[in-house]
Amino acid sequence: MGVKVYGPTMSTCTARVLLCLEEMGAEYELVPVNLSIGEHKQPAHLARNPFGQVPAFEDGALMLHESRAIARYVLRKYKISGADLLKEGSLEESAMVDVWLEVEAHQFDPAIAPIFFQIFILPMIGGVPDQTVIDTNLEKLCKVLDIYEARLCKTKYLAGDFFSLADLSHVPLLHYFMGTPHASVVYSRPHVKAWWEAVSSRPACKKVTSVMPGSA
Amino acid sequence: MGVKVYGPTMSTCTARVLLCLEEMGAEYELVPVNLSIGEHKQPAHLARNPFGQVPAFEDGALMLHESRAIARYVLRKYKISGADLLKEGSLEESAMVDVWLEVEAHQFDPAIAPIFFQIFILPMIGGVPDQTVIDTNLEKLCKVLDIYEARLCKTKYLAGDFFSLADLSHVPLLHYFMGTPHASVVYSRPHVKAWWEAVSSRPACKKVTSVMPGSA
Ligand SMILES: N[C@@H](CCC(=O)N[C@@H](CS)C(=O)NCC(=O)O)C(=O)O
Ligand SMILES: N[C@@H](CCC(=O)N[C@@H](CS)C(=O)NCC(=O)O)C(=O)O
Repeated sequence: MGVKVYGPTMSTCTARVLLCLEEMGAEYELVPVNLSIGEHKQPAHLARNPFGQVPAFEDGALMLHESRAIARYVLRKYKISGADLLKEGSLEESAMVDVWLEVEAHQFDPAIAPIFFQIFILPMIGGVPDQTVIDTNLEKLCKVLDIYEARLCKTKYLAGDFFSLADLSHVPLLHYFMGTPHASVVYSRPHVKAWWEAVSSRPACKKVTSVMPGSA
Repeated sequence: MGVKVYGPTMSTCTARVLLCLEEMGAEYELVPVNLSIGEHKQPAHLARNPFGQVPAFEDGALMLHESRAIARYVLRKYKISGADLLKEGSLEESAMVDVWLEVEAHQFDPAIAPIFFQIFILPMIGGVPDQTVIDTNLEKLCKVLDIYEARLCKTKYLAGDFFSLADLSHVPLLHYFMGTPHASVVYSRPHVKAWWEAVSSRPACKKVTSVMPGSA
């Protein structure tokens, strides 16, 4: 029996899990959760994720939440049939995957997520984007991307000369961001640009992002 | 040769790494970094952590940053001599460790860190704590702790009936928090209280927290 992912395709955290499943060539069922009517705060979904968020993930009796934890599980479970995106066999390589996955979560995400929220989410719920919030976070994002540029001068991907979950985890928010007028902050950094081109042209990325609203 | 941790003992992220080293019985050298004079923004430290934060970690030629990534490395490297706090040998158990480590980082930390900042950091830099910020985040923290209470009714520790990095990772901020008048939100939840007593009485926790300022 295949595994199930609960969440809408638009959700960046849900997309993180789908990207891993697609990279591994795993079979799965996507069960939609309608955030606009608050389905994620209903008992049925709270039983899957007590924090009332998407995604949730089901594999038989095992129920998981938190996208980066689910991502690790998927990459471990299907490792045999696909590539090795965690490199857990090597102490040094797995450490670098972990470092840059944490950087994604704690440095990149806090800068890019508010921009995504202002430009894509607020208008959907009747709000008006606040340019000051966008500008402040763009400045933070540029500082992060300067560090990425320096890193990607030395290695082809973030964790080293191999593609890993650290790269993949950036895709959902960066996909949306690249559809905004601010995409130039990526294009103006040659190594970040080359990295994004390599990552976003992977078949799994193309497949998952093609059904995300806001696709170019 | 032993490994080196760069950071001050007061720093909660640095303490997360020290807790892992102590749990594993590893030898290490703690190299102080003086945040109050901006030593973490100087070239010597930026070479260790390009984001200009503590901790940084050195093991021969390997240089790591991001406390939760360093924690994983330490627990893997010294696993033979100590306990197994990642459970990577089991697909299900490692998934639960990952889920609750992500919960710590993405649900618990965002609620408790601002309280820590208001009560402990602001006064050190000449600021005055904002009671509204404290109250808002206490409310968020209580919602998180309600979910912990429900979880800890079923299992002794967060990831299951075994102690893991998911528990350990909560120690630094919770240690400070338990020294505030708000500690009652932990004591009033019987399973959270029992969990905290089990975690905080571990020799490694006692050793690391005893040198953290604000110890009771
Ligand atoms: N740290 C969580 C964050 C999950 C999250 O923020 N999900 C969003 C959608 S991307 C959500 O459910 N938002 C609705 C809500 O929080 O009420 C993860 O990585 O899974
Ligand atoms: N996600 C990072 C956060 C590191 C962090 O915020 N460190 C704090 C001390 S606990 C720091 O360096 N603060 C000074 C600064 O950010 O300039 C980690 O887990 O290591």
